[in-house]
Amino acid sequence: MIKSSLIEPDGGTLVDLIVPESQRYSKMTEIESMAKVNLTRIDMEWVHVISEGWASPLRGFMRESEYLQSLHFNCLRMEDGSVVNMSLPIVLAIDDETKGRIGSSLHVALVGPLGDCVAILRSIEIYKHNKEERIARTWGTTAPGLPYVDEVITPSGDWLIGGDLEVLKPIKYSDGLDNYRLSPKQLRKEFESRKADAVFAFQLRNPVHNGHALLMNDTRKRLLEMGYKNPILLLHPLGGFTKADDVPLDVRMEQHSKVLEDGVLDPETTIVAIFPSPMHYAGPTEVQWHAKARINAGANFYIVGRDPAGMAHPTEKRDLYDPDHGKKVLTMAPGLHKLNILPFKVAAYDNRENKMAFFDPSRAKDFLFISGTKMRAYAKNGENPPNGFMCPSGWKVLVEYYQSSQAQEASQ
Amino acid sequence: MIKSSLIEPDGGTLVDLIVPESQRYSKMTEIESMAKVNLTRIDMEWVHVISEGWASPLRGFMRESEYLQSLHFNCLRMEDGSVVNMSLPIVLAIDDETKGRIGSSLHVALVGPLGDCVAILRSIEIYKHNKEERIARTWGTTAPGLPYVDEVITPSGDWLIGGDLEVLKPIKYSDGLDNYRLSPKQLRKEFESRKADAVFAFQLRNPVHNGHALLMNDTRKRLLEMGYKNPILLLHPLGGFTKADDVPLDVRMEQHSKVLEDGVLDPETTIVAIFPSPMHYAGPTEVQWHAKARINAGANFYIVGRDPAGMAHPTEKRDLYDPDHGKKVLTMAPGLHKLNILPFKVAAYDNRENKMAFFDPSRAKDFLFISGTKMRAYAKNGENPPNGFMCPSGWKVLVEYYQSSQAQEASQ
Repeated sequence: MIKSSLIEPDGGTLVDLIVPESQRYSKMTEIESMAKVNLTRIDMEWVHVISEGWASPLRGFMRESEYLQSLHFNCLRMEDGSVVNMSLPIVLAIDDETKGRIGSSLHVALVGPLGDCVAILRSIEIYKHNKEERIARTWGTTAPGLPYVDEVITPSGDWLIGGDLEVLKPIKYSDGLDNYRLSPKQLRKEFESRKADAVFAFQLRNPVHNGHALLMNDTRKRLLEMGYKNPILLLHPLGGFTKADDVPLDVRMEQHSKVLEDGVLDPETTIVAIFPSPMHYAGPTEVQWHAKARINAGANFYIVGRDPAGMAHPTEKRDLYDPDHGKKVLTMAPGLHKLNILPFKVAAYDNRENKMAFFDPSRAKDFLFISGTKMRAYAKNGENPPNGFMCPSGWKVLVEYYQSSQAQEASQ
Repeated sequence: MIKSSLIEPDGGTLVDLIVPESQRYSKMTEIESMAKVNLTRIDMEWVHVISEGWASPLRGFMRESEYLQSLHFNCLRMEDGSVVNMSLPIVLAIDDETKGRIGSSLHVALVGPLGDCVAILRSIEIYKHNKEERIARTWGTTAPGLPYVDEVITPSGDWLIGGDLEVLKPIKYSDGLDNYRLSPKQLRKEFESRKADAVFAFQLRNPVHNGHALLMNDTRKRLLEMGYKNPILLLHPLGGFTKADDVPLDVRMEQHSKVLEDGVLDPETTIVAIFPSPMHYAGPTEVQWHAKARINAGANFYIVGRDPAGMAHPTEKRDLYDPDHGKKVLTMAPGLHKLNILPFKVAAYDNRENKMAFFDPSRAKDFLFISGTKMRAYAKNGENPPNGFMCPSGWKVLVEYYQSSQAQEASQ
């Protein structure tokens, strides 16, 4: 047996909480007598995330001790004194009525939005859900209008329930994209079969333009120069909850396919897979989660951009986070020192060369910055971005998406 | 030379930033040409705190890297990979005008509220002061009415200036209490001269009643039972900024003196000194600072109460923090594992025995809980608390304070 040279998962062992098929029947029988807890669509995304070990060494929804460490220190201390990063509270909220129904039960069954039992939560602990404190410490603001807060936290119950998770079978979405949803275990196997000696992860929730591609190809070149023989790119779009004006996952996946078909990225050295986590838009706090989860999937290099996981302040005319803080905080974060952080070089449209290029401050006036917002505006208005901004087949996917959603809006 | 057996200060060496007398003149000359930064009364308290090494290994107001680590992780990573606790941002705010005046200076002079230059800040770094984020991450709320926020942060400038501090001479207040303001170095010397083999610290900002005394005496007994030969109590009232309805420092110090004179606490095994830090009322975040600073003063045991550094929520009818979180967070906090945390046993007035006693849940109805608020109400209304709640001479100090302040109010 050849030992993997991939980076070790947090805690030393990749967590896998899917019940072996041989035990499934007896678990199903056991579940019948258990108190039931209903999950939302986004709770299910977290069940998915935890079950496959993206949050290793976390083995279930957080109990209070893990929650407090995450909230105050962005990390968990293991029994041996070592520290793993854990910047977002991964918690399950329940309301008074559910708490009453659970009573003094030791274990509960988790029921998906379609009414099917998906998991058991064992040795549960119920504790208070102070939403204000959670929001303030996670986002650094309590201003109204944070997408995850509005969608998930505000409507949720006043209690959190933690425990050890056992998931009855792998979580599937049946949306035609499940084959892209590779677990950390599957990704590690894939990296090993490709004999990767370096894996560099690129987290995104936007279409890939040629500036991104330039950066990823340049990173590969740098890794080769550093002496790595076979660096593999993990192009890793986020697949869980995103805010309403982000481009939907299916459209992004189609766009990413075109980018690979067009050869803008090399399919031989690139793996495209979906990261199942929901998006918090919590800037420096969230970027740690994005990086940490990729360690568990085998990545030892992480590309971090300007203002990662950032957005506009919901009530003030400014960015919610200092655009440099994400990168800085990531470099300093407990438990992430084993990961190599690669800061994003700024790319912009070079009007002299008619292509995306690394920004050259000595001839700043030649460069045009095209933000995600601007890109979406072009596509919405049916305008073409400058030639060379994105491969034409990828751009077509976006234009068609916005045209069809405008048509849909108009017909309503 | 006998090696001290006291706990090591954070970072290994106690920071001392007071300029040696022989260099004072040349520093004063150097200062003349430097840009000046004006300090508030509370900035001065921080200069005091930093200069004496309470915040060791911090050597000045935080630069951005320290600020971000404090804000996100409540700890600082040292060059050797070790971690020290640092839960409160210790920062100096300046406004646009001051920033403009500093320009590209490398070093600045800090000017006290009386107009005298008190310190040099070297190799400065100026960075943005995002007040909302600082408040949210420190307090876990942005609700209006937090005392330190209203008094210090809201009126302060939009920039923070960090650097290495050199303080021209020890900070004095000339309020008749300077002899109580022992530096960590002086405290360590005192503990050594008393041949302490354990030092247990008790942080407070309220008068000492017999319940506190019971707890402190009981702690000493427990330490003796654990095998320590000479445990010394550091009774350590906070001396910096407190909110308007707290009992003022001079009154508290007089009250504490009476408690020792009366023999409620044993003067032979007790040191009363003033902790110069301002109070944040930031609950679980602040209690770490209170504990960490006492490590630097030589304490290896720390008594933590219910809801330490807590207060009522400024706008909602509830405690701002879960009363158990302070103790829990303290036990889990990075960099504090070398400190022994002693949880506060609950004391209340025992109506059967007519004295303060540890609460016995089996006869709960015999016990009367007297909160700080209730105690202050008794004293304000000239009522006597139950016999045995506080030594009579200590109580008299409080009654006289409230009578004289009421008389003063009436005459205005």
